[in-house]
Amino acid sequence: MNISDLGEIELIKEINKNIKLFTKDIVKGVGDDTAVLKFDKKHHLLLTTDTLVQDDHFNLKWFTAEQIGNKAIESNVSDIASMGGFPKYALISLTLPKNTNINFIDTLYNGINKTSKKYKISIIGGNITHGKEISITITLIGLVEKKNLCLRSNAKVGDLIAVTGNLGSSRAGLQLLRNGKKGASINYYLNPKCKLDIGRKLIGFVNAMEDVSDGLASEVLNICNSSKVGAIIYKDLIPLNKNIVIDAKKVKKNPYDYALYGGEDFELVFTINDTQLKKLKGIKCLVVGEILPKNKGIYLHHKGKNKKLSYGYEHFKE
Amino acid sequence: MNISDLGEIELIKEINKNIKLFTKDIVKGVGDDTAVLKFDKKHHLLLTTDTLVQDDHFNLKWFTAEQIGNKAIESNVSDIASMGGFPKYALISLTLPKNTNINFIDTLYNGINKTSKKYKISIIGGNITHGKEISITITLIGLVEKKNLCLRSNAKVGDLIAVTGNLGSSRAGLQLLRNGKKGASINYYLNPKCKLDIGRKLIGFVNAMEDVSDGLASEVLNICNSSKVGAIIYKDLIPLNKNIVIDAKKVKKNPYDYALYGGEDFELVFTINDTQLKKLKGIKCLVVGEILPKNKGIYLHHKGKNKKLSYGYEHFKE
Repeated sequence: MNISDLGEIELIKEINKNIKLFTKDIVKGVGDDTAVLKFDKKHHLLLTTDTLVQDDHFNLKWFTAEQIGNKAIESNVSDIASMGGFPKYALISLTLPKNTNINFIDTLYNGINKTSKKYKISIIGGNITHGKEISITITLIGLVEKKNLCLRSNAKVGDLIAVTGNLGSSRAGLQLLRNGKKGASINYYLNPKCKLDIGRKLIGFVNAMEDVSDGLASEVLNICNSSKVGAIIYKDLIPLNKNIVIDAKKVKKNPYDYALYGGEDFELVFTINDTQLKKLKGIKCLVVGEILPKNKGIYLHHKGKNKKLSYGYEHFKE
Repeated sequence: MNISDLGEIELIKEINKNIKLFTKDIVKGVGDDTAVLKFDKKHHLLLTTDTLVQDDHFNLKWFTAEQIGNKAIESNVSDIASMGGFPKYALISLTLPKNTNINFIDTLYNGINKTSKKYKISIIGGNITHGKEISITITLIGLVEKKNLCLRSNAKVGDLIAVTGNLGSSRAGLQLLRNGKKGASINYYLNPKCKLDIGRKLIGFVNAMEDVSDGLASEVLNICNSSKVGAIIYKDLIPLNKNIVIDAKKVKKNPYDYALYGGEDFELVFTINDTQLKKLKGIKCLVVGEILPKNKGIYLHHKGKNKKLSYGYEHFKE
């Protein structure tokens, strides 16, 4: 069987079933947005790695090299933000075709360095090798105060589910580009910005948190499966940018599908109890659903009907 | 200008010149086998990342999937060993073509898991995405006792330069395979083993240390440039396996070229003063040269003549 038949979710399950841990200082291994290790009295260490591959996560037709560098850092910082933490160090592994122009590398690093500077990330190492396609793997290391760690498994029955902003625009932008159309959504796809600042304001108030890198549906399913709870998402409450409605029409798609099953929005989705929610002042926070007991299932509610929530974008299957 | 014209050494210089550090807890950033961060009272944290790309570092004709998994771990552990440390945790990023068979992944992970178990490495996270060619990026995290940290920059004038075993066999094996020949060297290429155990025995005795991943010449040049010293390597002292002499003849090459300019031997090369060297009992340790003052230059000595030492294998240029 090929991995395209199996899909990413099952493939990861297959891989993880044989992994062994040899030490007790691991707070969280595989199965969250970052790994979590014991560090010092106050902090845990967060470690995450993410690969951008040419013609999958970016291409040279739509992206400038600087935008690629920016996206590589933002997408990794987003994983650290979703744990409640802040980034500190990065290792950068580049795979480059031999005919890559040196100007491309300079401009790529302009993007990497600019975005790293914004987040005060120190680049402490890396690796360069050659290959047929450009590929950028970033390992980002951050810290989180122990008391502020936001694990996927932390959602409580009765929590509200909320997001930090509009969803689906990035994927709508990609679809415009694929269809040779123009529109405001393209900017969200080419110039993603993670929500580290909001993440740091949410800590202490929220329970489970994730970044919306694979679409709202995937992230809610991850939280529910890890926390052993159910959930209901109200379709009408999912926040959409006014431009996505216009742009989705251009390619004859439903904008809610982008929000639910798209990806790379890098907003945060979190669960929070009602009392804590009321304390969040001046923080953009849009309720989209509620955590239910496990036996209630995981549903999308629309016009009085409940539909089972399913995974969105999966690598290999698309 | 393309990166193949510039070469790996100059490309890395170009990239590193704009890197900024935003924190004081970095003991060593770019420019050694691993990054080094402050960790606890006794230890520093070591972080390294290395990518294996299909048809460059391995191919599916010569390697089993298990051997690829083994090589990916061994090559990273080798970097930790060269700092005097020991590995603890790994993050594994896979890029896979959509038509990759699930059996390949299972067997690859057999190799990764077996070798990780040997070194008690816990796999704590990773990433899977798709691409045109198979690529495996491993980020390995280890520890080293502060007092035992072996930096490249630590070589002292008068130190002897020594290696832990025979050099060049891995590259000789690759050349046999490329030319459709057979020979004992092939095993060194397909089944590399790093020298973590010897590295841990050398700590406390040695000054600078590196692993011989890019050939002896490259590693000695790195040590000299970082330590601001010169060196002389005696060609006749470079240890060769008897099989490499036979195998190099089959492809009409000089085995010393493999030792000096080949790569992926994963032996350790270190500098040590004479008094400490005498204390090393029962540890394989073969002297190949001496550290000189910087103004004496960096030379290869052979039959009464000195030749300037030059870099060996470089990605992009070959």
